[in-house]
Amino acid sequence: MNKTDKKRIVVIGGGTGTFVALTGLKYYPLHLSAIITMMDSGGSTGRLRDQLGVLPPGDLRQALVALSRADTIWRDLFVYRFENGDLNGHNFGNIFLSALEKITGSMEEAIEWATTILNTQGDVFPVTYENAELCVELTDGKKICGETNIDELQEGEIRKPIARAYLQPDVSANPAAIDAIKEADLIVIGPGDLYTSIVPNLLVRGIREAIASSSARKVYVMNLMTKNGQTESYTARKHVQDLVRYTGDVLQTVLVNTQMPDQKALMWYRKAGEEMVQNDLQKGPYDIVLDELVDTSMMHKTSSDVLRRSLIRHDPHKLASALVKLL
Amino acid sequence: MNKTDKKRIVVIGGGTGTFVALTGLKYYPLHLSAIITMMDSGGSTGRLRDQLGVLPPGDLRQALVALSRADTIWRDLFVYRFENGDLNGHNFGNIFLSALEKITGSMEEAIEWATTILNTQGDVFPVTYENAELCVELTDGKKICGETNIDELQEGEIRKPIARAYLQPDVSANPAAIDAIKEADLIVIGPGDLYTSIVPNLLVRGIREAIASSSARKVYVMNLMTKNGQTESYTARKHVQDLVRYTGDVLQTVLVNTQMPDQKALMWYRKAGEEMVQNDLQKGPYDIVLDELVDTSMMHKTSSDVLRRSLIRHDPHKLASALVKLL
Repeated sequence: MNKTDKKRIVVIGGGTGTFVALTGLKYYPLHLSAIITMMDSGGSTGRLRDQLGVLPPGDLRQALVALSRADTIWRDLFVYRFENGDLNGHNFGNIFLSALEKITGSMEEAIEWATTILNTQGDVFPVTYENAELCVELTDGKKICGETNIDELQEGEIRKPIARAYLQPDVSANPAAIDAIKEADLIVIGPGDLYTSIVPNLLVRGIREAIASSSARKVYVMNLMTKNGQTESYTARKHVQDLVRYTGDVLQTVLVNTQMPDQKALMWYRKAGEEMVQNDLQKGPYDIVLDELVDTSMMHKTSSDVLRRSLIRHDPHKLASALVKLL
Repeated sequence: MNKTDKKRIVVIGGGTGTFVALTGLKYYPLHLSAIITMMDSGGSTGRLRDQLGVLPPGDLRQALVALSRADTIWRDLFVYRFENGDLNGHNFGNIFLSALEKITGSMEEAIEWATTILNTQGDVFPVTYENAELCVELTDGKKICGETNIDELQEGEIRKPIARAYLQPDVSANPAAIDAIKEADLIVIGPGDLYTSIVPNLLVRGIREAIASSSARKVYVMNLMTKNGQTESYTARKHVQDLVRYTGDVLQTVLVNTQMPDQKALMWYRKAGEEMVQNDLQKGPYDIVLDELVDTSMMHKTSSDVLRRSLIRHDPHKLASALVKLL
């Protein structure tokens, strides 16, 4: 098949959800692109961003690793996190991208080098090369700025629902991201944390318009679980309601999981007040596609990191298979 | 030429001197090996060693870069030093080798990966894979341990000459280093700081014996300048006298520079009490080979790092050419 004949899929997001989607999709003969949020402000990424003045590398790194066909050593390096001393908590992939950005003088060149070294199956586009912070306004008028502050609730914090999200300052989209969206056959939004991984992309000037004008089929992958502080108690319909405020009425398909996750894993989430997203979608302007999408291999993981972050997640291969059927 | 027909050169040392020698030699059709001191305890290397429990990567990194034929981006990365925040002062190459050692569980594998990635023209062998500290005893009986403590004088410190150097604890040589020495046609000792880059290799159990039993021609490259705290006011003869205490009477050739360095550069050194090494060698058990070996391109460098560390150094190509003639 000629390269230009390949179907084009664009995944929009960041974080673990996008990692999972890309990991599954890279095995298909597709022209694959990932458009990645650049608003991360926490952890290793936040420190590098603040201290070195680089663009936030964390979400990019995850997408690059997901698409990598390089030796496992490279994938091991890119997910390796130092556990002591000056480098404590820093991820090697973040350090690598930051050093490349410093040496080449641009994140664009840094990513080019990284895609070559990691031999990625597809392109990774930062949604913007400009520096911006994600902010949300709650229904009580309170404003929270910084992705990590939005993502992580303080101990005992009770927070009103999010009324709206915005960027500070307003920034323009990476032209390559716009082009990828326009040329796509399928645009995949999610899975991922709605307000910290998905919406930040849609807030960047030019992205919403590009999605609207693209002839691609637009699919939203419904999250498996609610998320405290941003989608607490959200049903599927509420997810879609919030999302379309940032995409406009363009969704043609919502892909929804029907498989029950492991009960023990559900218990972990319940303790933190997080639940399975209830499917209350009614056929309307979009199709509802149901499929069994849960990753059952995660049940055996025990690391606290996995437990906390996403013990219940989509299965890369089931998800990719369901998405490819929509082409 | 068949690979096994290639002449074998082994360079023993660490630091800038070895970097220069390897940089010049890599352009010749040789079988090149570098045996590198593992006693560094200062700066980025010392911190990684202490905090992460890895073997000291700094001298290895310099040798790897010297031999690299990879894209310049890799060489740029391996010499890149972060200047802010948590990573301040850390060299990217050191971080890279440390992450590889952590992931693979051994410095040996880490170096294998690094030589592949950097596409090195030759092998780099740590003199030992065991952990040891370099110590010296001064003529007044005072003992100093830690390479960086020996290397760097405190402000205003007046130090008696070094009476002897030793390792704590005693460690055994890397068998691959022993093999390289035994199979060599030419063994190059230096250039480099006598007590902090050269002697530490010779103190490792098995190295001295391997050098003695090798049929290779053994050449010592005389330093251009004296070094405070270790070879203060040393003439060429005094350098050789000290060296042979650790090699035994095996030197066949001493390669000595005859070219005057730039006067302005000499002034910099003089301010710090460092002088050109005076050649008072007399023909004896070894040949004295004279040649013009100064790197005149260094005069135009202005970075304070270069100024301090080795503004006056051997020219890689002149040095390599002089060494190859000894084969």
